[in-house]
Amino acid sequence: MQYSPLLADLIKNLQSLQGVGAKSAQRIAFNLLSKNRAKGIALANSLASAMTNIKECSCCRNFTEEELCPVCSSFKRRQERTICVVENPADVSAIEATSEYFGIYFVLHGKISPLDGIGPEELKLDQLEELIKRIECRELIIAINPSVDGSMTSFYIADLAKKHNVKVTTLAQGIPMGGEIDNMDQTTISYSFSNRKAF
Amino acid sequence: MQYSPLLADLIKNLQSLQGVGAKSAQRIAFNLLSKNRAKGIALANSLASAMTNIKECSCCRNFTEEELCPVCSSFKRRQERTICVVENPADVSAIEATSEYFGIYFVLHGKISPLDGIGPEELKLDQLEELIKRIECRELIIAINPSVDGSMTSFYIADLAKKHNVKVTTLAQGIPMGGEIDNMDQTTISYSFSNRKAF
Repeated sequence: MQYSPLLADLIKNLQSLQGVGAKSAQRIAFNLLSKNRAKGIALANSLASAMTNIKECSCCRNFTEEELCPVCSSFKRRQERTICVVENPADVSAIEATSEYFGIYFVLHGKISPLDGIGPEELKLDQLEELIKRIECRELIIAINPSVDGSMTSFYIADLAKKHNVKVTTLAQGIPMGGEIDNMDQTTISYSFSNRKAF
Repeated sequence: MQYSPLLADLIKNLQSLQGVGAKSAQRIAFNLLSKNRAKGIALANSLASAMTNIKECSCCRNFTEEELCPVCSSFKRRQERTICVVENPADVSAIEATSEYFGIYFVLHGKISPLDGIGPEELKLDQLEELIKRIECRELIIAINPSVDGSMTSFYIADLAKKHNVKVTTLAQGIPMGGEIDNMDQTTISYSFSNRKAF
């Protein structure tokens, strides 16, 4: 199809959005042009500004354009002296949505993966160590997705925290709410059995 | 979740993209920020420029930033003296992808719909009439999606073209390639029966 150059560019660039393929990009472009030009311009401005100004929170490495993210800038939350270590900013959103955690976070932006050349330095674990000392951390909660690389990262971080006499905990594993036992993987089922709880 | 203001804005604005909900918007935003900042900026520029500069082709009403779209500016295609009338720019792309049509298009950007206050004027059918006269059109192909409003629009346009002694044709209807007869709607099946062809 011979699109005009600007339209071809727009459709190509829309495909850098995760989950947007050629067909959706075309549909999105036509929809914006037909009905939502003002919204398209608002998005362009917001994209440009976010890409340029958003950086890592100097405390927890979550995304923010300020020196400190909204969580870290709360005195009440720092005072909890609890750090929850997560892989990605999206994990922070998921945990915040429960409204059950009142401490601060530390975002790794990845996990230790020797094959990909990602070690403790890439995850800035020295910054985590600094943070543990600075807030005199009482409990470090490891909320890293369970996987081979994830477990390795968890062990490494647990060791690091124990050096500073911090209590280390990790999220409970087992069958999720709404999960069906016959669809669960073997590892989850055996884990759930061996860690069964009094009813 | 307490996002930083710029991030909250970005996630809200990404939801003006068709098919992108709250969860996808968050995933897209984090992905761009983590891995694709340069692409995010390229998209912002391309969006701003497309929203501002793309208008309708003065001949066929397809989207373009030039006076004439790539199809209409081809002398060879105008020379075919054939116009294919479609509802949306996306239909043009779909037909162009077959590489089987060599004439020009006319994009209605909608169909006649009295309930929504869309009549012949909103579809700029006077511009279509002008075009028929200007290129001394020989055949007008109606490629409007089959529906109640679509049929009404097709009848109206066929009448208009016949006034100028133009041959009017419409796309064949029936069972699509790969379609399963037992899943087809009744109207399609009866139509396919009454319009059966010699094998």
